[in-house]
Amino acid sequence: MRILVINGPNMHLLGSREPEVYGSETLASLEKAVADFAKELGIETRFAQSNHEGEIVELIGTARKDADAIVINPAAYTHTSVAIHDAIKAFPKPVIEVHMSNIQAREGFRRESLTAPACVGQICGFGANGYKLAVQAIHYMLSQKA
Amino acid sequence: MRILVINGPNMHLLGSREPEVYGSETLASLEKAVADFAKELGIETRFAQSNHEGEIVELIGTARKDADAIVINPAAYTHTSVAIHDAIKAFPKPVIEVHMSNIQAREGFRRESLTAPACVGQICGFGANGYKLAVQAIHYMLSQKA
Amino acid sequence: MRILVINGPNMHLLGSREPEVYGSETLASLEKAVADFAKELGIETRFAQSNHEGEIVELIGTARKDADAIVINPAAYTHTSVAIHDAIKAFPKPVIEVHMSNIQAREGFRRESLTAPACVGQICGFGANGYKLAVQAIHYMLSQKA
Amino acid sequence: MRILVINGPNMHLLGSREPEVYGSETLASLEKAVADFAKELGIETRFAQSNHEGEIVELIGTARKDADAIVINPAAYTHTSVAIHDAIKAFPKPVIEVHMSNIQAREGFRRESLTAPACVGQICGFGANGYKLAVQAIHYMLSQKA
Amino acid sequence: MRILVINGPNMHLLGSREPEVYGSETLASLEKAVADFAKELGIETRFAQSNHEGEIVELIGTARKDADAIVINPAAYTHTSVAIHDAIKAFPKPVIEVHMSNIQAREGFRRESLTAPACVGQICGFGANGYKLAVQAIHYMLSQKA
Amino acid sequence: MRILVINGPNMHLLGSREPEVYGSETLASLEKAVADFAKELGIETRFAQSNHEGEIVELIGTARKDADAIVINPAAYTHTSVAIHDAIKAFPKPVIEVHMSNIQAREGFRRESLTAPACVGQICGFGANGYKLAVQAIHYMLSQKA
Amino acid sequence: MRILVINGPNMHLLGSREPEVYGSETLASLEKAVADFAKELGIETRFAQSNHEGEIVELIGTARKDADAIVINPAAYTHTSVAIHDAIKAFPKPVIEVHMSNIQAREGFRRESLTAPACVGQICGFGANGYKLAVQAIHYMLSQKA
Amino acid sequence: MRILVINGPNMHLLGSREPEVYGSETLASLEKAVADFAKELGIETRFAQSNHEGEIVELIGTARKDADAIVINPAAYTHTSVAIHDAIKAFPKPVIEVHMSNIQAREGFRRESLTAPACVGQICGFGANGYKLAVQAIHYMLSQKA
Amino acid sequence: MRILVINGPNMHLLGSREPEVYGSETLASLEKAVADFAKELGIETRFAQSNHEGEIVELIGTARKDADAIVINPAAYTHTSVAIHDAIKAFPKPVIEVHMSNIQAREGFRRESLTAPACVGQICGFGANGYKLAVQAIHYMLSQKA
Amino acid sequence: MRILVINGPNMHLLGSREPEVYGSETLASLEKAVADFAKELGIETRFAQSNHEGEIVELIGTARKDADAIVINPAAYTHTSVAIHDAIKAFPKPVIEVHMSNIQAREGFRRESLTAPACVGQICGFGANGYKLAVQAIHYMLSQKA
Amino acid sequence: MRILVINGPNMHLLGSREPEVYGSETLASLEKAVADFAKELGIETRFAQSNHEGEIVELIGTARKDADAIVINPAAYTHTSVAIHDAIKAFPKPVIEVHMSNIQAREGFRRESLTAPACVGQICGFGANGYKLAVQAIHYMLSQKA
Amino acid sequence: MRILVINGPNMHLLGSREPEVYGSETLASLEKAVADFAKELGIETRFAQSNHEGEIVELIGTARKDADAIVINPAAYTHTSVAIHDAIKAFPKPVIEVHMSNIQAREGFRRESLTAPACVGQICGFGANGYKLAVQAIHYMLSQKA
Repeated sequence: MRILVINGPNMHLLGSREPEVYGSETLASLEKAVADFAKELGIETRFAQSNHEGEIVELIGTARKDADAIVINPAAYTHTSVAIHDAIKAFPKPVIEVHMSNIQAREGFRRESLTAPACVGQICGFGANGYKLAVQAIHYMLSQKA
Repeated sequence: MRILVINGPNMHLLGSREPEVYGSETLASLEKAVADFAKELGIETRFAQSNHEGEIVELIGTARKDADAIVINPAAYTHTSVAIHDAIKAFPKPVIEVHMSNIQAREGFRRESLTAPACVGQICGFGANGYKLAVQAIHYMLSQKA
Repeated sequence: MRILVINGPNMHLLGSREPEVYGSETLASLEKAVADFAKELGIETRFAQSNHEGEIVELIGTARKDADAIVINPAAYTHTSVAIHDAIKAFPKPVIEVHMSNIQAREGFRRESLTAPACVGQICGFGANGYKLAVQAIHYMLSQKA
Repeated sequence: MRILVINGPNMHLLGSREPEVYGSETLASLEKAVADFAKELGIETRFAQSNHEGEIVELIGTARKDADAIVINPAAYTHTSVAIHDAIKAFPKPVIEVHMSNIQAREGFRRESLTAPACVGQICGFGANGYKLAVQAIHYMLSQKA
Repeated sequence: MRILVINGPNMHLLGSREPEVYGSETLASLEKAVADFAKELGIETRFAQSNHEGEIVELIGTARKDADAIVINPAAYTHTSVAIHDAIKAFPKPVIEVHMSNIQAREGFRRESLTAPACVGQICGFGANGYKLAVQAIHYMLSQKA
Repeated sequence: MRILVINGPNMHLLGSREPEVYGSETLASLEKAVADFAKELGIETRFAQSNHEGEIVELIGTARKDADAIVINPAAYTHTSVAIHDAIKAFPKPVIEVHMSNIQAREGFRRESLTAPACVGQICGFGANGYKLAVQAIHYMLSQKA
Repeated sequence: MRILVINGPNMHLLGSREPEVYGSETLASLEKAVADFAKELGIETRFAQSNHEGEIVELIGTARKDADAIVINPAAYTHTSVAIHDAIKAFPKPVIEVHMSNIQAREGFRRESLTAPACVGQICGFGANGYKLAVQAIHYMLSQKA
Repeated sequence: MRILVINGPNMHLLGSREPEVYGSETLASLEKAVADFAKELGIETRFAQSNHEGEIVELIGTARKDADAIVINPAAYTHTSVAIHDAIKAFPKPVIEVHMSNIQAREGFRRESLTAPACVGQICGFGANGYKLAVQAIHYMLSQKA
Repeated sequence: MRILVINGPNMHLLGSREPEVYGSETLASLEKAVADFAKELGIETRFAQSNHEGEIVELIGTARKDADAIVINPAAYTHTSVAIHDAIKAFPKPVIEVHMSNIQAREGFRRESLTAPACVGQICGFGANGYKLAVQAIHYMLSQKA
Repeated sequence: MRILVINGPNMHLLGSREPEVYGSETLASLEKAVADFAKELGIETRFAQSNHEGEIVELIGTARKDADAIVINPAAYTHTSVAIHDAIKAFPKPVIEVHMSNIQAREGFRRESLTAPACVGQICGFGANGYKLAVQAIHYMLSQKA
Repeated sequence: MRILVINGPNMHLLGSREPEVYGSETLASLEKAVADFAKELGIETRFAQSNHEGEIVELIGTARKDADAIVINPAAYTHTSVAIHDAIKAFPKPVIEVHMSNIQAREGFRRESLTAPACVGQICGFGANGYKLAVQAIHYMLSQKA
Repeated sequence: MRILVINGPNMHLLGSREPEVYGSETLASLEKAVADFAKELGIETRFAQSNHEGEIVELIGTARKDADAIVINPAAYTHTSVAIHDAIKAFPKPVIEVHMSNIQAREGFRRESLTAPACVGQICGFGANGYKLAVQAIHYMLSQKA
């Protein structure tokens, strides 16, 4: 089982960006922790970070060849991107949306997600652990189907 | 570590209610699965289901005495209850909101959650597995603090 | 054929509550009139009144065992209850919404019904007679199916 | 007692128009059934169908001379006609609004009725039977007054 | 100078329709009073009343041949007709909107006028006198131009 | 018969302010024309202009002693002043709102009038002539009452 | 003179719930202080607290037998309950709404009160003293009537 | 193949109505050009223009007998007619909506089309050529099916 | 202890303005009653009434020198004045908003208070007694602090 | 005559993406068909597809050097891109917006086009044929100008 | 070159009003700094502060005689005054709006400026320096024109 | 002191794009003028223009290493980009938003800025000079801190 984990805009700054909201862990260390966790479940992970809406669209588009599921934190694009919504909808396997912070408890414009309706489900508010929970969720989902 | 798991209105019908949305597992079997999962993490669980907004308010209010965290699926009250929002806010330990279906992909009135802003985080779209993920999330959270 | 007739909050005050809107007949006499009318059509009726949203949810939930249809006047909960909407949706047989007054001709907040979209139909503005019309409607509906 | 029954735009297509929503009965047969039903209650009925908002306004305006009540299905004009609202308001006897489908359970623009606030009451969701229920409702109403 | 005076839907009922709002004068007597008033100013008047949106569109369209100005009370169509808005816009000479009642002091849906932005001006709240004021206004306007 | 004519903010600039919208006549000459017109109808006029919301409130408040009616062009305060609305409502005799331009055909924020619902009627779009029409309207109104 | 004082959901937690908003006094001590204050005015008080919307509806409904007025802090139900609105409206004597905090200065959803329009008046922002002021207000009101 | 081409209100004024928006070609010449174009594709055309919403409803209703497709420019009714929406929906073959101007670039109220969701597609902004493109579109569509 | 009591626009008309809403007591007599009441609590009162938003802003601004608290009935400015909101916010001691009528039970535009969020609390619906309750509230507040 | 045809995000997946909405033809074959069609009209075509909003902005910006018109399907960016709106507005020659599906008949967020007001016209709902119609439309437009 | 600098309501409290938002500099010292800065650019400045909307309207109205430009901080009136909007629009030379704080980053009601659309431009968020920047901006503007 | 100046989408067309709105100066010449101006203040400037939202996010992200402040004209992304909002918020030094035109006086969708709340301040309406004013503002700000 192979999962592609996509992080959206400004996530490359993780660890230095507003640490009171996003914590002080870097993206690399977060990805390492998720990869280790997945490995234990027998899942292979691939990671990508992009600040470009179009690049994220393409990552999802090409993932259909080599990924069984996607875990995506669209970050700011969550609230503005119909293009990523469409890319997720066009992806024929499960996609899970993750947010490190609880987007429901922040500014008004973060309360609407354009991408969530195209996903299987959403996990938010658990910091870096949210990604592990998403991997776990996919594991449950694909194991049950099998 | 003790977790109280609360299920809201109409969840007692689980298994017979709109199975195409909520699956055919009963609430009892769901609770059993969650309890077993929690036990393996060394977590004791207690379960409650209520169709009464006021009763859920009281369950949360008295939980402060004997629960380290709450996992709640407020069901329909998610979208209409300020009272449960207030009860969660008054609870001094973590509360996680769970929904079996992806509420973002259903009717418009299910897209707003009055309760989520008072919670630590939200997990939705993973059916019965969502409860296990929430227990796992609390385990992460409380282990890290310790 | 058995019909459960449910009346929502403040309906127990019928006869003494704002008689210029709701008339001076008591709930007991209204129920008696409806029972008599139904009997002539060969329909057995059971009546319930509750001021509790949760109790109404439960009345609908357990009705699946012994009622062929429900006539419900959710009163104030019409405009605020997703829980009753969900309960009606989970009920596998016809439910008809009745209002004694014409809710379209009153305050703005009474013009939206959260429960009507989950029902088969709605009858409003005919006072106590609305319940008889609803019983008649169910009679038509179930006779035609048979 | 004389009742005028008015059907609005596209109702002349009844039976061939979207049968999954409106059934396969024609308008003529529907009118026949309603007339028969009314006759048993000692009520004389007259029927009119018009696709013209202005014509419906005129039908209501002239009905004051020879009708004791009106049953109207304004169809699409329900949602757009202030002119019919005004005509109903100017009519000094009871008017009942009927819809064959449950307009609360369809597209958003069908959920608002401009005409209902000017009527005595509304009946919707019972197909052709709705007209009979409306006739019955008028019978109750005018008998009680007498 | 020739003025066409157009009255919209339900205005044929003037005198019998909601006299507490519209007074007890009939349309014929109102038209007579306006014609007499205009005559004194040397203005020839022609009157038309229609309950049909399309007919009003046509009245305005053909008026370009023989009218120097139009006084229109679009009644209910004020609030719903883009077609009459367009017809007025296409008319190359002044059009004045008149309302007998003060539409700003009635139901919310009467507060928006779709037709007024296409007119030269609006006069409302003065009952039958409003038409005379409109004729006077046109007289001022066209005299000043000349 | 005595009429108080009140002009609101920026009306003192009449003649020099945006002449393409408001014309090139000064306020003094406008007032003179209106006084002359009123005199012919046997009406005594008094004029006031103020840029102060509070002063306009006071002008209306004290007018109850010596005016039989008020003609007011609240200008910008039309769209923002509840205080003038309240003052008009507290004035026990007729008040007419006048606007020189057609406020319905300008910016969106000029389409709502907070003051009009408290008035007897509204006249707009006829430039300086609007005031004469308002005086005429009052003349009609008070003559008919007498 | 007898007054019923009703406290809504989560008020049983007073003293331990968000003390920075609601203070550290318990509900029992608050009730004691209000009872003492009322006694000095010759008023008998009865207290009730409920987390159940339906129970509050019933408390109001039965109060008509033995209370001359009601002081109610509907807490969270202020913003969501049409049922309590209706119960207050059906109560034939004065009802005063009290809030300990200034609900106008908190989250957006606390700014709208569904219950206040059915009450005589509202007092908010004075903590426990608000109840005493409400008792005082009723004293003024009923003394003046007598 | 037979196509019915319907033009809505004020289209009979084409050539003289706001030529800067709609051009100076008359409706007759436009229809001639479309007929010629269609003929070359082997398509027979029939033309109708009506200012009456109800008549357009009827034109669509009876077209089911003798037309394989409809090209309609509902003009002003685009933005206000649920009746034409319903008529189009009841028509079992393709309907294409045409607008001469780009309705997206005009007043706000022209940006919403009530009729377009019931059509196969929409073409706007190309003046008289839009009709030819619509005929061409139908030709493509029906040829591909065949 | 010194309290400044400010009354806003149209309050100088008290006693003659809409007596069915505001009662027949004059402002002078109201002020006298409040002064007497305050005196008994050992509080010195100063009164001001202004119809000018700017003057009220200045009254609040200079009160910082000689008042320990302000009781304000901003009347119409409640719903439109950000300037008074800012003045209250800049005042470093408690300000209480009073309304004689229950503003929640009147026109829609009276339901929003721009000034209340800047105050300590709000009292409305108790006529002239509301001022006394506000003085009492300040007395409680400042005594408790001392 | 040279036309640039731009396809927006996810259009590279054509043929495999939601074939029930977008058909099974690939983008390459679609482009081929359009090129062939254009060639017959003596028009040279160039094609570009991009998932990047910025790239589309640049494609339009540089097109001013070598294209006489643009046909663009902005796909998801239709609903979210002011940048493409601005780029189109800055392009001094005709731009036509094309959508394969009827965007008016899909999700609410697809009904608003930010880009259409900057275009000459819009064609939607005709699948791949829409591009040919757009080329035809440009041909009409530019031939008429010449 | 002469510039009039106008400060709106509550600005006379500068230095003592909410210093965490507006700083501790007084208005007099701010005006001194701006005057000195302007002098270096050869610009003469005149300063005015008013808490009265009407007075600000008049300051702008009379400035046309002796000012080449206006720098205005309408403070609270920014969000509520159409009268100042109109006064600015009637002023035939450049007007610049200044705010000391970043109004976009504060309460929702401060995000809309009614006055900015009538100005040449807006500068906000730079405290007292904003006025100097505005003077500089006018200097650029008028120098370029010359 | 080093400042990064970022220009958003379509700004590379400056000089040729809608010159009536944006002037005829090219971006290069604008950048030269700003650099010269900054140099005189002892400030080093670096310039970047991008049409890509993601690239602008990255420019801001890496600027933390070598810029003391940012001047940004996000152009169209002002109104649609949460990603740039987040990037600015994550940048630990001052960012100033500049617009050449007065965005408050243009289309409705240009009146909301998603990016401004994350900036220190905003300057708009002064064409190319706005950049110089922004540089000056930063100079004031950083000098005062030092």
